[in-house]
Amino acid sequence: MTDRRTDAISELRPLVLDLYEHPMSGEAIEARSLDIIDREIKSDRFSADEWEIVRRLIHTTADFTLIDLVRFSPDAIDAGVGALESARPIFVDSNMIRSGLSLARLRQVSPDYSYEKLICHVADEEVSTRARESGLPRSLFAVKKSAPILDGAIAVFGNAPVALLELNRLIVEEGIRPAVVIAMPVGFVHVVESKVELMSLGVPYVAIAGRRGGSPLAVSTIHSLCNVALRKKS
Amino acid sequence: MTDRRTDAISELRPLVLDLYEHPMSGEAIEARSLDIIDREIKSDRFSADEWEIVRRLIHTTADFTLIDLVRFSPDAIDAGVGALESARPIFVDSNMIRSGLSLARLRQVSPDYSYEKLICHVADEEVSTRARESGLPRSLFAVKKSAPILDGAIAVFGNAPVALLELNRLIVEEGIRPAVVIAMPVGFVHVVESKVELMSLGVPYVAIAGRRGGSPLAVSTIHSLCNVALRKKS
Repeated sequence: MTDRRTDAISELRPLVLDLYEHPMSGEAIEARSLDIIDREIKSDRFSADEWEIVRRLIHTTADFTLIDLVRFSPDAIDAGVGALESARPIFVDSNMIRSGLSLARLRQVSPDYSYEKLICHVADEEVSTRARESGLPRSLFAVKKSAPILDGAIAVFGNAPVALLELNRLIVEEGIRPAVVIAMPVGFVHVVESKVELMSLGVPYVAIAGRRGGSPLAVSTIHSLCNVALRKKS
Repeated sequence: MTDRRTDAISELRPLVLDLYEHPMSGEAIEARSLDIIDREIKSDRFSADEWEIVRRLIHTTADFTLIDLVRFSPDAIDAGVGALESARPIFVDSNMIRSGLSLARLRQVSPDYSYEKLICHVADEEVSTRARESGLPRSLFAVKKSAPILDGAIAVFGNAPVALLELNRLIVEEGIRPAVVIAMPVGFVHVVESKVELMSLGVPYVAIAGRRGGSPLAVSTIHSLCNVALRKKS
């Protein structure tokens, strides 16, 4: 004879116990996730290397609509892979991106990568002061401060459209040419224009058209470019 | 007589120059963004405090579909605000979240907040070792290691569904009761179940139902709860 109360409580068997019984590593979960994406969506509009990036953007957000929003310049992947192999500095527009980037992964591509090559000035005191004085966003002055390293660098935007606008100006007015631009700022003001302008300038880019974007998408793109670089190596 | 070539080049007037002429601060851009959201979408299904959170989730991702996916327990906001005012520890499942959280904002709500109250063990050597030995994800052991501080804490998930599953087990099997759970892991494996289970346990939560989620959403929720707390103060 079973006590129904006890039954009711025992129904609350935590789901994680199944995982304890049949362990699955983070890598195995990731592989299964990518399989699910490949099963649920087919696309022949991307090259194999591009698809490596697109499916990881979907993996990062569980958002299949991104497939219609990703834009590559024709030279984007070669430029990105080459820049990573040469351990070019990586400018990022937020500390979340710096924190999300895997130094281990970057160092697999080039042992010359170190934390110091991930450049983010948005929280610098001096940048704050200039923003306050001018009435403009901090992200703009973070780009200005990075200008000396931006030529030939990997420039990554997952937040701040004004930062991307300022990079666009540096490209047009000061002849700075980043190796590749990851153009994924997000939001409602200046965002669409910042990407449209960037895509018109003739520099290599991976972009998310429209308002969408975000730090995890930007991080994911760099990690995918690392994967493409590593596959070419092996 | 105008030289057409010169004209074509001068068309490349960088857009950011408009901003130089009419400066707009980060705060002003944010306010305008929130106005755009309020104009583009109307919802009467949320309380004013809930809407503070929902519209910032939209602001963070430019994704209006989130409005149909956000879930609040009835006590979520009071519990979250109370926990922040008491400077309860904040467990986070990724270093990106720790990096994204504004200590300045948290300290406005309670001066007792310090960086040490933002707990993330996912990159600890010991956690790595246990994951490797067991064939389970690191995020699970990061939660286990945090168990001593989870009762009464704010528990924030923007990445790892397995971490949330392990928290669910601690709640069921070990009687741990977080003050509030921000349940926004993202992806394709274990994600949906981890949230369904959490929402059944009777602890306060803010969740994104389904596969969607992410670190910026989790960070945004905490910042919005801070805003609600600060508004109540003033």
